[in-house]
Amino acid sequence: MLLAKVRGTVVSTCKEPSLNGVKFLLVQLLSDSGDPLPDYEVAADVVGAGIGEWVLIARGSGARQHEGYRDRPVDAAVVAIIDTVSLDSGALYNKRDDFS
Amino acid sequence: MLLAKVRGTVVSTCKEPSLNGVKFLLVQLLSDSGDPLPDYEVAADVVGAGIGEWVLIARGSGARQHEGYRDRPVDAAVVAIIDTVSLDSGALYNKRDDFS
Amino acid sequence: MLLAKVRGTVVSTCKEPSLNGVKFLLVQLLSDSGDPLPDYEVAADVVGAGIGEWVLIARGSGARQHEGYRDRPVDAAVVAIIDTVSLDSGALYNKRDDFS
Amino acid sequence: MLLAKVRGTVVSTCKEPSLNGVKFLLVQLLSDSGDPLPDYEVAADVVGAGIGEWVLIARGSGARQHEGYRDRPVDAAVVAIIDTVSLDSGALYNKRDDFS
Amino acid sequence: MLLAKVRGTVVSTCKEPSLNGVKFLLVQLLSDSGDPLPDYEVAADVVGAGIGEWVLIARGSGARQHEGYRDRPVDAAVVAIIDTVSLDSGALYNKRDDFS
Repeated sequence: MLLAKVRGTVVSTCKEPSLNGVKFLLVQLLSDSGDPLPDYEVAADVVGAGIGEWVLIARGSGARQHEGYRDRPVDAAVVAIIDTVSLDSGALYNKRDDFS
Repeated sequence: MLLAKVRGTVVSTCKEPSLNGVKFLLVQLLSDSGDPLPDYEVAADVVGAGIGEWVLIARGSGARQHEGYRDRPVDAAVVAIIDTVSLDSGALYNKRDDFS
Repeated sequence: MLLAKVRGTVVSTCKEPSLNGVKFLLVQLLSDSGDPLPDYEVAADVVGAGIGEWVLIARGSGARQHEGYRDRPVDAAVVAIIDTVSLDSGALYNKRDDFS
Repeated sequence: MLLAKVRGTVVSTCKEPSLNGVKFLLVQLLSDSGDPLPDYEVAADVVGAGIGEWVLIARGSGARQHEGYRDRPVDAAVVAIIDTVSLDSGALYNKRDDFS
Repeated sequence: MLLAKVRGTVVSTCKEPSLNGVKFLLVQLLSDSGDPLPDYEVAADVVGAGIGEWVLIARGSGARQHEGYRDRPVDAAVVAIIDTVSLDSGALYNKRDDFS
């Protein structure tokens, strides 16, 4: 999985039928310093993440391992909202600092 | 999934038999600023997308999660035509501006 | 899928048993201008492609979606011989121009 | 698989339900000289690896080939703690030198 | 699949249980000129390859399409020892020249 930050949403009316009801978030991938990488993903949100939150992204068939998603054409999903990232005995990220 | 723009078509007569009837679109991958990336995909079209439209591309086994596609040798599919992309409280793309 | 051009063959006697009878082609990946990219693939040929032809390459599990290939350890296959590529209202490639 | 070094942990309360009980390690990918690459992974730990240890990372569906993980949305796992890496008739890494 | 050259071995005692008995080779990926690329893989050896030999590497779920490997957490395997690579009507590699 990779660290990412939620930046926006993608809306589509005309889509593969099984995608009805799927919420698409545009997330920016983050480096291990917490800086934005050039890469992004449009990911199905299965945890109710909000703009600005740090999340974990699963890609490939891993993104479909969720009730009701196994037969949907998605290859990326937001599977966790991150509380903390600890790195080299320090704290890289703490959700409380960002959202309080 | 990634943002992409439909640029053309690929036609083949001699192909793996299960690919009969599949329409192949050449799509240009887009950055999160909407600019063309150097990468492209030849993707099976399951939504009837047209030249110039912004679409969502699913890759890998996700591209085969569509009625009748599970046993076809495709690794990329156009799975949605995009209406809007909202980013950082602004609008990156609105189909109405492009096609009206 | 990606555009590629057939450049050669790879021969192996000592291999995973299920690979017996599989023909391996070395194909050069092509950019969306038809120029050779630095990347190549060694792909199982399921359509009888010849040296110099433009082909479509499927990768990952998509490469095994062909009669008799589902249990073989391949991750890339030549799944179509390309007739034409049309791009931005022009023709990028026409097999007839190359092979007549 | 790739060589990697365990650098930290990622904690999440709000996550896809099947991820309960999964320990997420942040691992730095290593080059074949043992130097840190720019890429990292957040990987499910199935072997009990500790900070600073060299490990093997499996990605994609391979990361879910472990008792109880087949239906969990993970795409990377720590599947082995490395004892030694031998390269070109020399020793690139020996765990005993690092941890004694 | 990609061309690679066997450079070494990776040994692990503490690993996912189904990996017992799997031999891990460190292989250097090769360009289509036969030069070493910066990328490597740690691959399960299912053909008995030796140091210095040119081999074919399958990655992803393709690496597990071998008797007894379908449920093991591996994402790369050595699936063939290469005899010859022919390219653009010339010979890029002939095992006999290297090992005689």
